[in-house]
Amino acid sequence: MLVRPPSGKKVLWQEMLRHELLAALDDRPVVIVPVGSVEQHGPHCPQDVDISIPYHLAIRTADEINDFPVIVAPPVTYGFTHYNMGEVGTITLGLEVFIAVLCDVCRSIWANGFQRIIMVNGHGGNLAPCWVASVKLAEEDVWALAITYWNMATDELAAWSEADDGSIGHGGEWETSLQLYLRPNLVDESLRVKDEWRQKFSPPVQRYAKFPERRREMQNGVMGDPFVASAEKGEKLFNVLKERLIALCVDYHNEEPPKYREFGSHCP
Amino acid sequence: MLVRPPSGKKVLWQEMLRHELLAALDDRPVVIVPVGSVEQHGPHCPQDVDISIPYHLAIRTADEINDFPVIVAPPVTYGFTHYNMGEVGTITLGLEVFIAVLCDVCRSIWANGFQRIIMVNGHGGNLAPCWVASVKLAEEDVWALAITYWNMATDELAAWSEADDGSIGHGGEWETSLQLYLRPNLVDESLRVKDEWRQKFSPPVQRYAKFPERRREMQNGVMGDPFVASAEKGEKLFNVLKERLIALCVDYHNEEPPKYREFGSHCP
Amino acid sequence: MLVRPPSGKKVLWQEMLRHELLAALDDRPVVIVPVGSVEQHGPHCPQDVDISIPYHLAIRTADEINDFPVIVAPPVTYGFTHYNMGEVGTITLGLEVFIAVLCDVCRSIWANGFQRIIMVNGHGGNLAPCWVASVKLAEEDVWALAITYWNMATDELAAWSEADDGSIGHGGEWETSLQLYLRPNLVDESLRVKDEWRQKFSPPVQRYAKFPERRREMQNGVMGDPFVASAEKGEKLFNVLKERLIALCVDYHNEEPPKYREFGSHCP
Amino acid sequence: MLVRPPSGKKVLWQEMLRHELLAALDDRPVVIVPVGSVEQHGPHCPQDVDISIPYHLAIRTADEINDFPVIVAPPVTYGFTHYNMGEVGTITLGLEVFIAVLCDVCRSIWANGFQRIIMVNGHGGNLAPCWVASVKLAEEDVWALAITYWNMATDELAAWSEADDGSIGHGGEWETSLQLYLRPNLVDESLRVKDEWRQKFSPPVQRYAKFPERRREMQNGVMGDPFVASAEKGEKLFNVLKERLIALCVDYHNEEPPKYREFGSHCP
Amino acid sequence: MLVRPPSGKKVLWQEMLRHELLAALDDRPVVIVPVGSVEQHGPHCPQDVDISIPYHLAIRTADEINDFPVIVAPPVTYGFTHYNMGEVGTITLGLEVFIAVLCDVCRSIWANGFQRIIMVNGHGGNLAPCWVASVKLAEEDVWALAITYWNMATDELAAWSEADDGSIGHGGEWETSLQLYLRPNLVDESLRVKDEWRQKFSPPVQRYAKFPERRREMQNGVMGDPFVASAEKGEKLFNVLKERLIALCVDYHNEEPPKYREFGSHCP
Amino acid sequence: MLVRPPSGKKVLWQEMLRHELLAALDDRPVVIVPVGSVEQHGPHCPQDVDISIPYHLAIRTADEINDFPVIVAPPVTYGFTHYNMGEVGTITLGLEVFIAVLCDVCRSIWANGFQRIIMVNGHGGNLAPCWVASVKLAEEDVWALAITYWNMATDELAAWSEADDGSIGHGGEWETSLQLYLRPNLVDESLRVKDEWRQKFSPPVQRYAKFPERRREMQNGVMGDPFVASAEKGEKLFNVLKERLIALCVDYHNEEPPKYREFGSHCP
Repeated sequence: MLVRPPSGKKVLWQEMLRHELLAALDDRPVVIVPVGSVEQHGPHCPQDVDISIPYHLAIRTADEINDFPVIVAPPVTYGFTHYNMGEVGTITLGLEVFIAVLCDVCRSIWANGFQRIIMVNGHGGNLAPCWVASVKLAEEDVWALAITYWNMATDELAAWSEADDGSIGHGGEWETSLQLYLRPNLVDESLRVKDEWRQKFSPPVQRYAKFPERRREMQNGVMGDPFVASAEKGEKLFNVLKERLIALCVDYHNEEPPKYREFGSHCP
Repeated sequence: MLVRPPSGKKVLWQEMLRHELLAALDDRPVVIVPVGSVEQHGPHCPQDVDISIPYHLAIRTADEINDFPVIVAPPVTYGFTHYNMGEVGTITLGLEVFIAVLCDVCRSIWANGFQRIIMVNGHGGNLAPCWVASVKLAEEDVWALAITYWNMATDELAAWSEADDGSIGHGGEWETSLQLYLRPNLVDESLRVKDEWRQKFSPPVQRYAKFPERRREMQNGVMGDPFVASAEKGEKLFNVLKERLIALCVDYHNEEPPKYREFGSHCP
Repeated sequence: MLVRPPSGKKVLWQEMLRHELLAALDDRPVVIVPVGSVEQHGPHCPQDVDISIPYHLAIRTADEINDFPVIVAPPVTYGFTHYNMGEVGTITLGLEVFIAVLCDVCRSIWANGFQRIIMVNGHGGNLAPCWVASVKLAEEDVWALAITYWNMATDELAAWSEADDGSIGHGGEWETSLQLYLRPNLVDESLRVKDEWRQKFSPPVQRYAKFPERRREMQNGVMGDPFVASAEKGEKLFNVLKERLIALCVDYHNEEPPKYREFGSHCP
Repeated sequence: MLVRPPSGKKVLWQEMLRHELLAALDDRPVVIVPVGSVEQHGPHCPQDVDISIPYHLAIRTADEINDFPVIVAPPVTYGFTHYNMGEVGTITLGLEVFIAVLCDVCRSIWANGFQRIIMVNGHGGNLAPCWVASVKLAEEDVWALAITYWNMATDELAAWSEADDGSIGHGGEWETSLQLYLRPNLVDESLRVKDEWRQKFSPPVQRYAKFPERRREMQNGVMGDPFVASAEKGEKLFNVLKERLIALCVDYHNEEPPKYREFGSHCP
Repeated sequence: MLVRPPSGKKVLWQEMLRHELLAALDDRPVVIVPVGSVEQHGPHCPQDVDISIPYHLAIRTADEINDFPVIVAPPVTYGFTHYNMGEVGTITLGLEVFIAVLCDVCRSIWANGFQRIIMVNGHGGNLAPCWVASVKLAEEDVWALAITYWNMATDELAAWSEADDGSIGHGGEWETSLQLYLRPNLVDESLRVKDEWRQKFSPPVQRYAKFPERRREMQNGVMGDPFVASAEKGEKLFNVLKERLIALCVDYHNEEPPKYREFGSHCP
Repeated sequence: MLVRPPSGKKVLWQEMLRHELLAALDDRPVVIVPVGSVEQHGPHCPQDVDISIPYHLAIRTADEINDFPVIVAPPVTYGFTHYNMGEVGTITLGLEVFIAVLCDVCRSIWANGFQRIIMVNGHGGNLAPCWVASVKLAEEDVWALAITYWNMATDELAAWSEADDGSIGHGGEWETSLQLYLRPNLVDESLRVKDEWRQKFSPPVQRYAKFPERRREMQNGVMGDPFVASAEKGEKLFNVLKERLIALCVDYHNEEPPKYREFGSHCP
């Protein structure tokens, strides 16, 4: 994975010196926490697909914003993915442990004085835990926004999909495309498979909520069709995502996190 | 709240006799777990808006399905709503406690032999915890679907909103309408207020994820405009929701929960 | 279960409007939290015997007290009853989860300004957890009294028992009588059985403490003899219990919860 | 505290050699776990009143039974007594920690093959936690009986009390008497005080359940009247308690712990 | 185990009267918390070897220091020793439970005003948990030093070992010697065995860290050679340990625990 | 930080393809888990000193071993370092959360079939938690060795120290030297300070155990003297450490993790 963006600009929290972090505090900085997972992604993709995408998004976003500081926190690499256990390469945290890690990391960043925190998640199983972590933190007046990258481009995903119907999949059309763009040397296209079985399995019961997953639901460790993936498609999607994340950082830089407000008369 | 549907049919788990539950097991029964919250809902609505709606939906759904058993579990009345504390009437569980309650209830129902469980949630703060509970349970081969009622009618909400832009709000257009339809005697329309302040507060930072809430974000303890609410609108929405939930129950009755499947050759 | 008492008086926390709860705060209100369990109760009784009794007691008590506000909180329906698992209908919470629910509910009620809280429990397995929850809360200066309903009438139970020797039993003489009085339509008297086996099993080891229970200890899912139950006996017992609970509410209304007191000279 | 009974017989688990414990397993042994607390007990009593009494009871009981092995486990010295914090000398465990200690200790003893375990408790705050620990353990088929020593002689306490109305108190009539009998050198009778204030404080609200305690409720760190205490009264009570505990051990030795029993036809 | 040192001086926290503890607070007292384990120690040693040694060290140390108060807290008898389960006599706490006990005990002692706390541990499995407990407590400004007794005399152990190469072992040369000195009546020398198998098992992988243990690693429940043990060697080692602990107490008495210090300019 | 060693060899778990991990399983592979911390390290060093060193050690070790697979797991970047909070840049996990993360990661790796796991830690506060995690895992038959890198070269550190007396310090002589060797561009030598105050603070109470730390103990956020640091010294130390870690990997590759062994006759 990239350590520095092409420009060589220093954007990683962990690389910064004390005075650099202190200086950043003066200008309403935004801190991005990449959140991912380590898990099997089919025979052709590496194990860190789900953290590599938000991590690269964060670095490239921080690189392009020069009007105020955007800092990339050390990635929360391990996620909540018990349902991929059994597929070699998968490492999972327990649910409560994962939520606690997110809360402790955001609490600490907040305690350093950084009040605009964005968790950028890249793994389906983390979506709900990230969101509840942000709600839980609000009770302590620690504010962290939790987003999942593909939700920033649902329209484009739907419009541009050749095979996967707008779904981010799992080692399918879009994750493979993003890997081919970001880290082509880590993909072995000759090993691609697609999940025939799953494509036929669309239970009506998933009308209003996704059914919880398990490994057994994947025929080949893949959801979707990586044969229609390409670096060009990956780049196109990545650039949209990056623009969206930049816009979000600008918005957040310009806003204040919630301030304490006295109760109205309807409270005791 | 209703105990029995208008037909008088017995649908509540807690009212059933042992032999009735045992008999239901023979015919691929569906169990609905209503999940809600107890919290202030503006000056004009009672505290149990968020449990009353999924509870009535569940009862009415169970009443109308006669081809197979649909049973309504005792409601999980208390939810995760720390951000409404400070507004009189609110009672909240801690996040981990709430998730644990959902898991223990679904585990127990499953252990009784009922393998088609649907949590129907009526509170925004519960949405993510219900979803992660269902994922967590899957690790133990306990399958429970988690839905939030308004997500079954997002198109209708968007199309029919006069003031609240398709949002379910909080004591606003739609929750008030549903209460006026379901329990008109518990609403005091003369006390209605709307939240002018919030309507002007639409931070761009909420592009891709809702910002965690706190009481301070509500001027009057309300989100949205209850002045455009009516029993007729409530009935119209309720009937759509009920039809959707009936369809979901039928789907689930006809499907099998996931079965264990041997690993493929890509696993050690 | 009743929602309103016969008088139609509004007594449920969840039905109250904001201004009604705020008004109640002015007059040293008492809040009753019914605590129960969902579990098999023999072939002739429904699953919610253990919550229905404290719930009806609370409602009828709140109905009859007019000198100050008595409010019935939403019932804590699920209890600690792993030892009834295996009997169809039973749903249990883990011990720590159940204690945490009780504490969170009482904490929240206290945070709303209500300082006279009574948990009225109706399930044997909850007796100790309710008591420890009240002790635990005291560390935070949250005061909640924990009572179990049959302990308000031990003399009457002993004097009036025809078969069960003053024990509340499980679907036996007294629980069945109370159900016949409160909810006759939910009892199927034709299915009654009694537990011959248990009646002969009175291990001397239970001299000074009840031996922990398990399902295996019940021959028919019943402890005691429901054949001697009647609605009349149920009514007689219920009225005594109600009078006791009314007296307790009056006492509590007239007293102050503990106030902070400076240490004496024997403390550092 | 005593290490060996007057006879010199070895009764402590911790003093036994491996082959001695193994030999005991052959003869349906009983293990007594003394459970207490470390806390202020007025100016005249030491801090370990609450563990010393069950510990001596256990040792003397084990000493007198020669027909089968009775072994005294290492005492669980620390208890749940936050409400005595603030009085010098008090050390408390958190509720969940204390319950977990009891469960881990009993689990371990059971795993060693000892299937007749009696927790003998000497502290009021431990009563409910000990009981719930025994219920919790039953879910794992680990059986431990939880008794609190004064409940073995409630009639005698009531009949023999000169000042404290049958209550065990706190550094009052009976605890002081027992100390004067068991460890006279650790009591300074010249420092005795009684709690005038508390004796007048008998809130009616404690009709059916003890109100949770706090230090502030004690004027002098004492509940009851130690001026009527004597070694003779201590000996008389101790001997009754010991006989009761001996009888309980004999009962338990003669009984089998619960065995697994197949479900009846009323279960799925 | 000793209750009082030979001098008869009162040194145990639990035996002290309120005014004695209060008086001690005036003179920068040191509190020693003995921490041990209950576990099989070969056929010739009792189960409480690991608590008996720090406990006697603490008592003898407190006995010999007369310039300021040294108080011995009630021992934390149970430790973290799952890897000895399976050997009869072993009782273990879970890791988190054990750490929590240490923290609660030290927190309580600190809350009593005693600010110089030393945990003296006698069990290998407790070494790391004691250390992390002390670090965890520091976050709350509760300071407790965690030492393991044999680390006070590593040079002597290495120099004086005839068979066990400076290791404290498990029922081997040194633990047996200490028992023969401290409690000769509890050792049955005729039953001694040594662990031939283990002496040959010195895996190179243990270069920089001890491999976690399990019972299976012991042939006879012993690590080391008790045949070279003697009371004289035990006394020699004990006296060195006692002198070291005395010196440590004097040091601590003369020092202040950390005080709050303002941040320097390098902090926000 | 390095992603690949100079050779370009693929050594990171997260970069591997499924078939590569599966192939590695055939040859007794070793998995190294780098464990670190994110925290202030003086004005001249970056925040990730404590993870960068074990991470580079792991990568370089894996690079040089060609006889069997050595795989570097994704680093556990966040550690237990509450005592550095207050110094800008520090992010900490709670103790229980950190231990749980280590256990979940090692459990998952083990579940993938990799049975030779080495945690290589680079942060003082993690030392004890890593060790207890390895002990805890052993209860489940998951074996993971926990080492802290500087303990592999204590003799060299002592012999080669010009200022810091063999201590690894905190942004002092040795950590700065290692950074100058590994990542010179991230160190700003012009900002070096040393901790005069601490050098004078050597409390005798730290005879046998390190006193728990807090930020207040550092004058400048540094422990030790970075002015005597150099890349040459860093390289010299790094090479020793690497050789030691290589030797450890070879040892472990050649050994079997513990196998289950039947109990001897001394167990029930």
